[in-house]
Amino acid sequence: MSTIKDVAKLAGLSRTTVSRVLNDHPYVSVEKKKLVQQAMEQLGYVPNSAARSLRNNKTGIIAVLIPKISTPFFSQLIEILEMAASAKGYQLIICQTQFSKQKELNYLNLLKTKQVDGVIMTSIENDWSIIDAYLNYGPIVLCNEMIEHAQIPMVYMNQASSGYNVAKHLLEMGHRQIAYCSNGIVSEGMKAREKGFKRALLESGCTFDENFHFENVASIEDGKQIFRKITEMKIKPTAIFTGGDSVAAGFISEAKKHGWNIPEDFAVVGFDNMEISELFDPKITTVVQPVEEMAIKSIEVAFEKIHKRQFRSTEKHIFSMKLAIRGSTMKKRKLVATS
Amino acid sequence: MSTIKDVAKLAGLSRTTVSRVLNDHPYVSVEKKKLVQQAMEQLGYVPNSAARSLRNNKTGIIAVLIPKISTPFFSQLIEILEMAASAKGYQLIICQTQFSKQKELNYLNLLKTKQVDGVIMTSIENDWSIIDAYLNYGPIVLCNEMIEHAQIPMVYMNQASSGYNVAKHLLEMGHRQIAYCSNGIVSEGMKAREKGFKRALLESGCTFDENFHFENVASIEDGKQIFRKITEMKIKPTAIFTGGDSVAAGFISEAKKHGWNIPEDFAVVGFDNMEISELFDPKITTVVQPVEEMAIKSIEVAFEKIHKRQFRSTEKHIFSMKLAIRGSTMKKRKLVATS
Repeated sequence: MSTIKDVAKLAGLSRTTVSRVLNDHPYVSVEKKKLVQQAMEQLGYVPNSAARSLRNNKTGIIAVLIPKISTPFFSQLIEILEMAASAKGYQLIICQTQFSKQKELNYLNLLKTKQVDGVIMTSIENDWSIIDAYLNYGPIVLCNEMIEHAQIPMVYMNQASSGYNVAKHLLEMGHRQIAYCSNGIVSEGMKAREKGFKRALLESGCTFDENFHFENVASIEDGKQIFRKITEMKIKPTAIFTGGDSVAAGFISEAKKHGWNIPEDFAVVGFDNMEISELFDPKITTVVQPVEEMAIKSIEVAFEKIHKRQFRSTEKHIFSMKLAIRGSTMKKRKLVATS
Repeated sequence: MSTIKDVAKLAGLSRTTVSRVLNDHPYVSVEKKKLVQQAMEQLGYVPNSAARSLRNNKTGIIAVLIPKISTPFFSQLIEILEMAASAKGYQLIICQTQFSKQKELNYLNLLKTKQVDGVIMTSIENDWSIIDAYLNYGPIVLCNEMIEHAQIPMVYMNQASSGYNVAKHLLEMGHRQIAYCSNGIVSEGMKAREKGFKRALLESGCTFDENFHFENVASIEDGKQIFRKITEMKIKPTAIFTGGDSVAAGFISEAKKHGWNIPEDFAVVGFDNMEISELFDPKITTVVQPVEEMAIKSIEVAFEKIHKRQFRSTEKHIFSMKLAIRGSTMKKRKLVATS
């Protein structure tokens, strides 16, 4: 592997001159620059990026912190983030935190150690006061999350309205006893979703029965288990907002196995509009997140922060959800006739 | 942000001494080391990793090149790679190539510019001769791929036996006209799978009908389309090896919609043993890849190469597949009775 010394030798110049060329020093003649570049090319010499990044403080890389890549919502988000970053000449590196505080800090260190120009966080494990300190080293953008008073750009969906609209829809379908699932993530967004859900119930004169609140629910298996729990209840709900299409799919498959008709016997709402929600029989009513809009805005904001070099300012970019209403909640002919 | 100068001042030592401590220079007393470390901690000073990596040439980071993160097989693979890397004190960064030659080279440059200690490639877009040059800068491990004569470690599943065993199973179930799907990826592994499949047919005295070969097949939608194509064929196959559970799911959902019984009217085999394959009715017969074994071995080999600093040697670590036989191919009571 060739070194700066080899380049100097081949170019017939001093090491200092070569180093000046590499550092874009103003007092180097065009001829000398050319000689150095030719020698570099001939030797296949690539300036160490560590050295280069010491000089210009730019890596062209943005790190995206993701709790779990295998979650379909996140892999979809990465997909679009990646395209948007590419369009701006940026490389993306994906860092999986596995919901670990320590891993989150390890990856945030990439900012501190100048291995990346900016960080997009899609979840938050540590207290904001701890993360805030990293803003001394570069920009952080929250995507899919919000922290009320954090001095950074936040790009997120209005979770309150997602909870509210799902409850409203189920109430309109005639349900009064509606179960709710939390996914175990404690965040402002998750709190807002739950609040919105309960607000809709209250507005319709219903009170939420805490027996119908299922926690730490995320997988197909969780969905199956919830169905089994509900069958054992004396007073049963008649509908459920599962918070995830996998959970909804698990619930429905188990319910069908036990001879229940969906939505006649029970209505089910998912979240994320995954492919599976359209493959199921019945198709699953689900919350469609504005993934594309959020991803594009996040890259746009990160790019702006990197170039303005101002990392602290509270900015909220809020996008709306859509509800895809399908067979798992929508009463068909038979029930419409009776209503 | 504090500098090395601030550390020197607070520690009451010269900048040279601080720099020696940072560089693990042998001739520094234990007391001075302690003073520097205390000052660093007090100031929250973190040595720039660019500077650090210039010194010891280690970043503690491995890059994993993945064509598409949203493919369930790859997100599952990343999951285990990440755990195995963590266990060895390594961070993983995930780089999505989107099947692009240019992106693959951009990410391989992380090796050249010493931003990572090693690279694990899960697919190959460029000719090997181009990639081979990057071995001058660090180790590359192939995971889920193989290149016959490449001088690197390769960790992969025996694709020939996956094709062979699937065909064998379908032949045993009485099928003679079996359709085959390729996913558009041109690789040694994909070629081997197809060869194995055809070899099993030949051994049973069947010839493969090229009309039954579907190419560039990967999604649920592709599966639905293939079903529609088959319904229009005069001479139809009676079974299909779809090469993917999504394809299989799409095929089955479309077939059911048209009143076909699976597996009585048509047998379907998937690939990857995704969650969906167990949720479907009937459950989908599928190839189970040794994901965990491959991931663990890949990290183990990458780690070894990084530390031995020998990057060129041909090593093949081959793992076997399993076939999960389920309702989409296995005739139930009724058909067993007639056979």
